[in-house]
Amino acid sequence: MSLPLLEQLIEAFRVLPGVGQKTAQRMAYHVLERAREGGQRLSEVLAEAIEKIGHCVQCRDFSETEVCPVCASASRERQMLCVIESPADRLAIEHATSYRGVYYVLQGRLSPLDGIGPRELGLDKLEARLAQGEVTELIIATNSTVEGEATAHYLAQLARRNKVRPSRLAQGLPLGGELEYVDRGTLSHAFGSRSEISE
Amino acid sequence: MSLPLLEQLIEAFRVLPGVGQKTAQRMAYHVLERAREGGQRLSEVLAEAIEKIGHCVQCRDFSETEVCPVCASASRERQMLCVIESPADRLAIEHATSYRGVYYVLQGRLSPLDGIGPRELGLDKLEARLAQGEVTELIIATNSTVEGEATAHYLAQLARRNKVRPSRLAQGLPLGGELEYVDRGTLSHAFGSRSEISE
Ligand SMILES: [Zn+2]
Ligand SMILES: [Zn+2]
Repeated sequence: MSLPLLEQLIEAFRVLPGVGQKTAQRMAYHVLERAREGGQRLSEVLAEAIEKIGHCVQCRDFSETEVCPVCASASRERQMLCVIESPADRLAIEHATSYRGVYYVLQGRLSPLDGIGPRELGLDKLEARLAQGEVTELIIATNSTVEGEATAHYLAQLARRNKVRPSRLAQGLPLGGELEYVDRGTLSHAFGSRSEISE
Repeated sequence: MSLPLLEQLIEAFRVLPGVGQKTAQRMAYHVLERAREGGQRLSEVLAEAIEKIGHCVQCRDFSETEVCPVCASASRERQMLCVIESPADRLAIEHATSYRGVYYVLQGRLSPLDGIGPRELGLDKLEARLAQGEVTELIIATNSTVEGEATAHYLAQLARRNKVRPSRLAQGLPLGGELEYVDRGTLSHAFGSRSEISE
């Protein structure tokens, strides 16, 4: 009764976040009914992206090259380093602010219960970079969630230990909110009025 | 600043139904961060499905073969023909009922304002089939939406014109609801107590 290939396709769509059986089915039908060209394109770009996109060796952001365009740019100010949880946060900051420093992407946040410690977030590499002395301000832009705040606290200590001034985005971010979803105005304001983290 | 390939991937995900910029971005990041194997699989199955899945020449359902397994099955009763709007509706009926007849998939519904008339739904082919005399009952299982009801009315006339008894699923479907989303019990009950459509 069933179409093996169609069912394989429905199953394959479930790899996407928030996509259950019903949604996967709608996606498969939609592509086959009305969007075969777009589906073909998705298939090709997906394979190419998975093959070619890795992580920048300097900031851990996604990159097609060993060093990403931001880190490689001569026009970015290297003394300001903004620590974010995910690549999406960089896009949000680039869109909302005129920040011209560089980034460090944790690709997560400290979460001991999930086995995510400083090493998983590459904080050993971050500390080595701070120790080199080029960075003067560490802008800590982790989310204002419980885990984001705990991560910020840890990062502030790490900065001070290496004679780097830690700062945190100004209050103004909604409590418990994810940075990625904040509106541009709020994010821009919070970014501009970031405050130094006192002892 | 931007990663062309990553942005291409985000853009490509937007071909999927209900997927806007934010969701597409989350999908791209999720696959690259945590699901590269599943993403690779999706890419491959998607390409294969688009290449190989066409429509059954008898019922218009999706099929990898010229005639789909349901139409080709010797154990299905050919005198009962159930008309549905989409392939998803067939799956719902197969799961919820013990129906052993065959199907005709409109791949849509009458919608004059969108330029979808009888020809677009293959109703000329359906009428030719009814005229052959093998079908005795046309079970009209279009959605209980305004357009679904209008389509049902048209189909009932088409059936009578060809000396075929039209029937409609029993009331019990939620008004304005899409058949695909009805719970199994309701759908099974409505299917079992379908009534003949009087003049
Ligand atoms: Zn980089
Ligand atoms: Zn068929």
